[in-house]
Amino acid sequence: MTHTLVLLRHGQSQWNLENRFTGWWDADLTAAGEAEATRAGEQLLDAGLLPDVVHTSLQTRAIRTVNLALDALGRAWLPVRRHWRLNERHYGDLTGLDKAETAAKHGADKVKIWRRAYDIPPPPITPENAFDPTDDPRYASLDPAALPMTECLADVVARTWPYFEDAIVEDLRLGRTVLVGAHGNSLRAIVKVLDGISDEDISELNLPTGVPIVYQLGDDLRPVERRHPLERCLGDAEEIAAAAAAVANQGTAH
Amino acid sequence: MTHTLVLLRHGQSQWNLENRFTGWWDADLTAAGEAEATRAGEQLLDAGLLPDVVHTSLQTRAIRTVNLALDALGRAWLPVRRHWRLNERHYGDLTGLDKAETAAKHGADKVKIWRRAYDIPPPPITPENAFDPTDDPRYASLDPAALPMTECLADVVARTWPYFEDAIVEDLRLGRTVLVGAHGNSLRAIVKVLDGISDEDISELNLPTGVPIVYQLGDDLRPVERRHPLERCLGDAEEIAAAAAAVANQGTAH
Repeated sequence: MTHTLVLLRHGQSQWNLENRFTGWWDADLTAAGEAEATRAGEQLLDAGLLPDVVHTSLQTRAIRTVNLALDALGRAWLPVRRHWRLNERHYGDLTGLDKAETAAKHGADKVKIWRRAYDIPPPPITPENAFDPTDDPRYASLDPAALPMTECLADVVARTWPYFEDAIVEDLRLGRTVLVGAHGNSLRAIVKVLDGISDEDISELNLPTGVPIVYQLGDDLRPVERRHPLERCLGDAEEIAAAAAAVANQGTAH
Repeated sequence: MTHTLVLLRHGQSQWNLENRFTGWWDADLTAAGEAEATRAGEQLLDAGLLPDVVHTSLQTRAIRTVNLALDALGRAWLPVRRHWRLNERHYGDLTGLDKAETAAKHGADKVKIWRRAYDIPPPPITPENAFDPTDDPRYASLDPAALPMTECLADVVARTWPYFEDAIVEDLRLGRTVLVGAHGNSLRAIVKVLDGISDEDISELNLPTGVPIVYQLGDDLRPVERRHPLERCLGDAEEIAAAAAAVANQGTAH
């Protein structure tokens, strides 16, 4: 039996547009991001890929992307679960800074390391940071020790994968087509494990926004075919490559 | 301890506008209905009524009403459960007919009885009816015997209340403020039991669309104060009365 998993990175957010480190800040979609989300739903419909169940992060931009895609699919009624483990990488005290501010405060070299090194997190967020999400009511029921103050990609893998193993695998095992609506780094974390991508190579992988990424998994819940993640995207291959390159060039595009 | 329950009837749908019996047909919101939904979220925010958890039917117009209200509240991230027991009354073979078609096919007297009598359902829907929802994938996991073919309001009470007793009461007992996004008749069913309204009186009660109806419940999960349901609505009392009267005059407004 083959299991179908669809990953969907949220469309453009206001802070993507402003090129600011977003992380756990709850930036909403732009009008362009909303259009990407609707198109993703239409692409799934055209491909005959009808999800049976949905998982999202706790962040508005991923939730609204999924809502708009499901509206386009006529599937607003799907059961949905939301979890902080699917959230974007927490950028620590970089949260809220744009590219120029970050370079001025920390130096361009360090920023490059924090963005690209697999296991070096930025400085933790402080209560002085106006975009500290610590007291956000959506995290009120968490063990305070579980709430990250900063994360490297290795941290994101460590906290995302348990949710995949428990909640998402359960749905896949029941034969359901699963749609996961999440973020650049939480989806990179899933892709890294599924495709067995090395710590070095994952830093070069940029997933396009608003494009369904489709995995066919075997009974071992690993991909049936070895393919580059960008080759698993629905739509025109050249457009996909351009979209991924645009994200890479955006610098702080999270 | 007081428990807070907010009921929200969906905003205007395309078939409300066309004055057709909708029932289990999945008509979407009009632009006016979307605006009602957003305003309901703003009213909850102004009143400081912040839901912790959401329950909806499986029907797009109720789901999208809640999604838009939650967007306005900044609470798209709330946990949500959807269930067919919160669906609108199933209008049987009246589904899809407008007022004139119904009168021509069945006679105005019978239609009045089916609309108003507590325990007399219209004729069951048949496979010839183009709006038969029997094969809709959202009901695929139901026991076929549970899927209604027609319903009177007594039937709606009988199938809605078990979901209230199980799923909604569980959340209320945990101290959560609960938002229920549903329909004219599934909400009348809940109101009937909570307020102890008689089989005769319930036929005269019309709930306004897109207006939060707020119940404070005691530890016995019955209303702390005896009040008419319309007095529990947020917003201007005269506007509420006018909105309820407009629904009543709409005739087939479900």
